[in-house]
Amino acid sequence: MTENHPDARQETGNDFKLPLRVYYEDTDAAGVVYYANYLRFCERARTEYLRELGFEQQQLLAERCIGFVVKSVRAEYISPARLDDQISVNTRILQLGGASMVFEQKILRGAELLFDSSICIACVDTTRQRPTALPADLRSLLKATVQP
Amino acid sequence: MTENHPDARQETGNDFKLPLRVYYEDTDAAGVVYYANYLRFCERARTEYLRELGFEQQQLLAERCIGFVVKSVRAEYISPARLDDQISVNTRILQLGGASMVFEQKILRGAELLFDSSICIACVDTTRQRPTALPADLRSLLKATVQP
Amino acid sequence: MTENHPDARQETGNDFKLPLRVYYEDTDAAGVVYYANYLRFCERARTEYLRELGFEQQQLLAERCIGFVVKSVRAEYISPARLDDQISVNTRILQLGGASMVFEQKILRGAELLFDSSICIACVDTTRQRPTALPADLRSLLKATVQP
Amino acid sequence: MTENHPDARQETGNDFKLPLRVYYEDTDAAGVVYYANYLRFCERARTEYLRELGFEQQQLLAERCIGFVVKSVRAEYISPARLDDQISVNTRILQLGGASMVFEQKILRGAELLFDSSICIACVDTTRQRPTALPADLRSLLKATVQP
Repeated sequence: MTENHPDARQETGNDFKLPLRVYYEDTDAAGVVYYANYLRFCERARTEYLRELGFEQQQLLAERCIGFVVKSVRAEYISPARLDDQISVNTRILQLGGASMVFEQKILRGAELLFDSSICIACVDTTRQRPTALPADLRSLLKATVQP
Repeated sequence: MTENHPDARQETGNDFKLPLRVYYEDTDAAGVVYYANYLRFCERARTEYLRELGFEQQQLLAERCIGFVVKSVRAEYISPARLDDQISVNTRILQLGGASMVFEQKILRGAELLFDSSICIACVDTTRQRPTALPADLRSLLKATVQP
Repeated sequence: MTENHPDARQETGNDFKLPLRVYYEDTDAAGVVYYANYLRFCERARTEYLRELGFEQQQLLAERCIGFVVKSVRAEYISPARLDDQISVNTRILQLGGASMVFEQKILRGAELLFDSSICIACVDTTRQRPTALPADLRSLLKATVQP
Repeated sequence: MTENHPDARQETGNDFKLPLRVYYEDTDAAGVVYYANYLRFCERARTEYLRELGFEQQQLLAERCIGFVVKSVRAEYISPARLDDQISVNTRILQLGGASMVFEQKILRGAELLFDSSICIACVDTTRQRPTALPADLRSLLKATVQP
């Protein structure tokens, strides 16, 4: 019943690419995207990536009491995105642990790299607020995307 | 146990005044505060106003299943706030209904009026997601502030 | 050179419809979209609407010193949008003045109306920060969309 | 002419501490502060820290064409902040380069560490969008705060 993002695509062996437009809300008085907002773009991309694989976070939460929690962020700001820019968030799994995963997420404008990050996400049993194993069905789908 | 905002004050017969500073996050590429963010400032002020009266929203929710929901907003944008501006959100109750209240909220920089709004808030029983009467203790405190 | 939003569409005699997904960043601890964020959605839709008509705000600013400024907002919050919701912002011109325009913007989830607003935008000469006439080319395009 | 944040304080040999309250706007549907928003809190604290030292970013920009740009972020999310929490952003200079500085910024709720980050900021000549030396007056003030 999941309706995927119409522009997002997962090319086999490649990154999942989410195209985004930069709006006024994303920018600040310096005329560029506010630094925290790149993390919003990355979260949208992780959400669409999971949706593309068939996992809706709302459902995981309601039906399996599974939530995802950001544990750490490492981000390099290389060049700023600006108002009206058409950008792409390119996402792939760097590491797949038992109860966590590390995403590599790059933001590009055309071929130009603007932002590079690795973001570690833990899987949490929301009934006990404790780390828990990634769901087996999600894990096997993600595993297939990790480069050996 | 409630710790009030150290700068906010309710002068008798007057508005509740919350001083705020404008940060980069509040501005956009036009160099001014992004229009939606004035509503964030207003919500902070309503929260601090209720806290000043002794009502913590988290507690109302947890202990009495009482929540507040915005029903309507009327806002005039008179002059823009800018980065580093020291502004004040001046809040008072315009109308007090059985299950709702209308706040008048003005944002000023010094004596200059930047933004003028009236915001209607409904009181909701969160167990049934239905309108419910304002708590009697809150209502009587608010009533005392309404100009006859 | 303008690349339009791939999903947005302007049906003749109808609203301009921008589909949006609700992400975590849009929601708050009450489990619904935070009230100020509906205005972010509306601004995205106005921007895409102008882009659809061939007007990029960045270009208007750089080449013609034309900016758009929100003058007033009237908004009714009818029913909340929630995480993962697929919503649509339906936009049309209600009134077209010499130096301003009033947008009617409704947000729907399927056929259900969640949010209804009218938002008045002034056209500004950014060199003098003064109201100025809407560009004639934009005005004639907008006029064609206004219901008689 | 700078008016400092009334609650912020720089204790000699210690961190600069900015107290903040968590509002609805900061939280998401998971009931906690949205992960990108900790970076907003950190930026407020860096801004107040510079203001405490007598440097207003708006003035640096207008009078000296000096801007600050985030180059990298490393952040650990240890425990979530929640609605109504009173938190503190504790900031100090970790490293002082010729044209950059690394801030260590921790967010605490009482004695509990919620978030730990190091954020590298470059000093930029905004007329040429190029790295430039930190202003000598700012640099000497910051140097005095760095632990040997």
